Amino acid sequence: MTELRFVNNMTVELVRSMGDDKSIIQAAQVSVVGGNDGEGAKDPERFLSYLMRWRHGSPFESTAMTFRIQVPIAIAREWMRHRIGWSYNEVSGRYKVLEPVFYVPDHDRPLVNVGTSAKPELAAGDGTQEAVMLVNLNSTYGYAWSAYESMIHAGIANEVARFALPVGTMTEFYATCNARSLMAFLALRTSDAGMSHPQYEIEEAAHMLEKEFANLFPATYAAFVKHGRVAP
Amino acid sequence: MTELRFVNNMTVELVRSMGDDKSIIQAAQVSVVGGNDGEGAKDPERFLSYLMRWRHGSPFESTAMTFRIQVPIAIAREWMRHRIGWSYNEVSGRYKVLEPVFYVPDHDRPLVNVGTSAKPELAAGDGTQEAVMLVNLNSTYGYAWSAYESMIHAGIANEVARFALPVGTMTEFYATCNARSLMAFLALRTSDAGMSHPQYEIEEAAHMLEKEFANLFPATYAAFVKHGRVAP
Amino acid sequence: MTELRFVNNMTVELVRSMGDDKSIIQAAQVSVVGGNDGEGAKDPERFLSYLMRWRHGSPFESTAMTFRIQVPIAIAREWMRHRIGWSYNEVSGRYKVLEPVFYVPDHDRPLVNVGTSAKPELAAGDGTQEAVMLVNLNSTYGYAWSAYESMIHAGIANEVARFALPVGTMTEFYATCNARSLMAFLALRTSDAGMSHPQYEIEEAAHMLEKEFANLFPATYAAFVKHGRVAP
Amino acid sequence: MTELRFVNNMTVELVRSMGDDKSIIQAAQVSVVGGNDGEGAKDPERFLSYLMRWRHGSPFESTAMTFRIQVPIAIAREWMRHRIGWSYNEVSGRYKVLEPVFYVPDHDRPLVNVGTSAKPELAAGDGTQEAVMLVNLNSTYGYAWSAYESMIHAGIANEVARFALPVGTMTEFYATCNARSLMAFLALRTSDAGMSHPQYEIEEAAHMLEKEFANLFPATYAAFVKHGRVAP
Repeated sequence: MTELRFVNNMTVELVRSMGDDKSIIQAAQVSVVGGNDGEGAKDPERFLSYLMRWRHGSPFESTAMTFRIQVPIAIAREWMRHRIGWSYNEVSGRYKVLEPVFYVPDHDRPLVNVGTSAKPELAAGDGTQEAVMLVNLNSTYGYAWSAYESMIHAGIANEVARFALPVGTMTEFYATCNARSLMAFLALRTSDAGMSHPQYEIEEAAHMLEKEFANLFPATYAAFVKHGRVAP
Repeated sequence: MTELRFVNNMTVELVRSMGDDKSIIQAAQVSVVGGNDGEGAKDPERFLSYLMRWRHGSPFESTAMTFRIQVPIAIAREWMRHRIGWSYNEVSGRYKVLEPVFYVPDHDRPLVNVGTSAKPELAAGDGTQEAVMLVNLNSTYGYAWSAYESMIHAGIANEVARFALPVGTMTEFYATCNARSLMAFLALRTSDAGMSHPQYEIEEAAHMLEKEFANLFPATYAAFVKHGRVAP
Repeated sequence: MTELRFVNNMTVELVRSMGDDKSIIQAAQVSVVGGNDGEGAKDPERFLSYLMRWRHGSPFESTAMTFRIQVPIAIAREWMRHRIGWSYNEVSGRYKVLEPVFYVPDHDRPLVNVGTSAKPELAAGDGTQEAVMLVNLNSTYGYAWSAYESMIHAGIANEVARFALPVGTMTEFYATCNARSLMAFLALRTSDAGMSHPQYEIEEAAHMLEKEFANLFPATYAAFVKHGRVAP
Repeated sequence: MTELRFVNNMTVELVRSMGDDKSIIQAAQVSVVGGNDGEGAKDPERFLSYLMRWRHGSPFESTAMTFRIQVPIAIAREWMRHRIGWSYNEVSGRYKVLEPVFYVPDHDRPLVNVGTSAKPELAAGDGTQEAVMLVNLNSTYGYAWSAYESMIHAGIANEVARFALPVGTMTEFYATCNARSLMAFLALRTSDAGMSHPQYEIEEAAHMLEKEFANLFPATYAAFVKHGRVAP
């Protein structure tokens, strides 16, 4: 039998990007100066802060970023609910036999909901709870994978056999977005502004995305943080 | 322990709709006659066929339909890749404890891929294959549900426990679309025109959608079929 | 020569709609109760306010409204910058000879910018300014229409002759949107929340849209106003 | 009085781009090989042709291009009807006083519609028609600009004065798209495949766009042409 791999981390890797803070300013300035250099070039941070403050969102769309992402299926499902300004290509469980890689939360992952069901607020579990989780996830992953393999070996099509695989199975996809759609993602998938209560795993992934974004567009990122982490 | 339910059928139920063939004609005619009655009113079928033939797509967007849909998670994932002109609200595995309802293909479902991996073409399995599928899916669903329940009972949050649940678990969602985005779905998710090789289950659901669509917009539907089942 | 018509008002007419406050609640509740009646049914206003407050936007997309709109071309251009959740069908200056109907602001329309160029703030003009505007707009409309007609009469194609027509020419279009995309429009195209500085004409049209919206979805509308007129 | 400029050409200038044929292949291959190099790398042209042939559209979205575009307002209006995968920032007639640059078709531009109104088919005009067009467009532009300037000089706000300006006035905008949305534009805005009857000017601009696209993505472009110039 194939050996299973259990992972407790996700991957968000920048593949390529287009544009920087200056491209956003350039796109915004066409409105007021017809393509020539204007005010924005003198004090880029102030200009970007102005755009963010007054919700002039379209200039932030004149950029692009492609990421390679590895997360559990349950998290990919949340991610792909973002439709506007996001494009996806994902590993297909129909076209290929999937890999036995499964997500198991690590020790730091809070396990108990001390909030309400509508607004989950998670706190650390005790040792027993961690043990219950580990034994149940690991054994279910093992059981499901063994069933999947049996079906594949019996000649059953990938697309049927995969019904057995848990949503904790790791998946991989390419995602292309722009600075505006990325900020909309951060606004909903991080809890930093106190507005959202995202699942732990997608927030962890969002913070990796945020780090790449801050590197590529430092002044835009600063303006985003300054104005309450709301997408313009 | 909770009793599991195994189902082999999906649900696509029309909740409400807006518009009919005439509304599409009315929207299209504003282009040529400025809102008054024109040619289209005299021969609706011919007019709609003309719009379809020459890919005048936007008038078909002046309509709306909301459906309540029950399919396995794996199929919901394919469905929600449709971003344009589709809105979704789905049962949340974070906000509630899910129901133990699982998808098991029935006897008619072809089990063996006799095509290539990139273009799957499914044929009937033999008795052994069907038995292998049944025993593996059913037992994995049972095992996973039991693990899920154990974690829930131990006080572990829904969002963590759900990692154990297979993508064959049934989910439920509301989907709102328009005649154009619905036709784009049919073009990709049915094999009737020989262009697509959709998974059996999503094609079955697509045919239920198609039936409702044909009822609501008979002349539009006839034009869609006549012109090769390509969305305008 | 054809007689010109000068108008100082716009039209926003509801053609048809789908859904009400309850449909939004129904779509939202599938997340937590799997399609059955739940909390929301007991206190609809509170539930909708909750959705709005915490930016749960997707349930508001399970609705639809179609409007017939008559505004000057310059305003139609601003309107059609709204891409997400909006569909359009407009009178075509290629397919038909346009009507000689032109927009002339009425006495109430503020004429002078006392703000900055980036954030226009308009105040009333004096009598001279109003006269200058009236004579210049009216005579240009007359001149342009006469040139347009001469070209049409000489057998020149509509699509060429129309280059002469001013952006003050009235146009007509059908627009289909949903409660969420309509609120996004109101957030940007009204100044009520102090965030936007829209052009007078589009704000006037937005207020007509708002009135229809408030009639169709009273509790949703109340929640929108209560939470700062920001689209969820 | 300011001197007017009459132009008979448009501008489509590539500002920056992301990705190439290989990026599209890379995104597509994640589906079948989980991110590693696969078949596609060996014969890129055949692989891209396969994607195009079977309408696997999403990999083409993992790219981006920003263009600076100068066209008459009437053509910008047609352009901005493309909502999906297109972002725009345009010169604002509210925030600035516009430039007196106007579009006048050159000698090659066909002037007479010999098709139907719904499917215009343009043929060359005679000398008289060309003269009628030139005198009427030029004089209307002059009249309208003079009215515009008078209003501006009288202190009337930009946003009011601009109602006088014809849709033949040149405008400028930045547009960001991806390979898929660009191909959808070419499919509708060129007549090469016999499916569309676009206006002469937007087809001219589309061909400039096409040239840049063919340079950046030669194998993708070849596949687009080979499979009937239909967007995947």
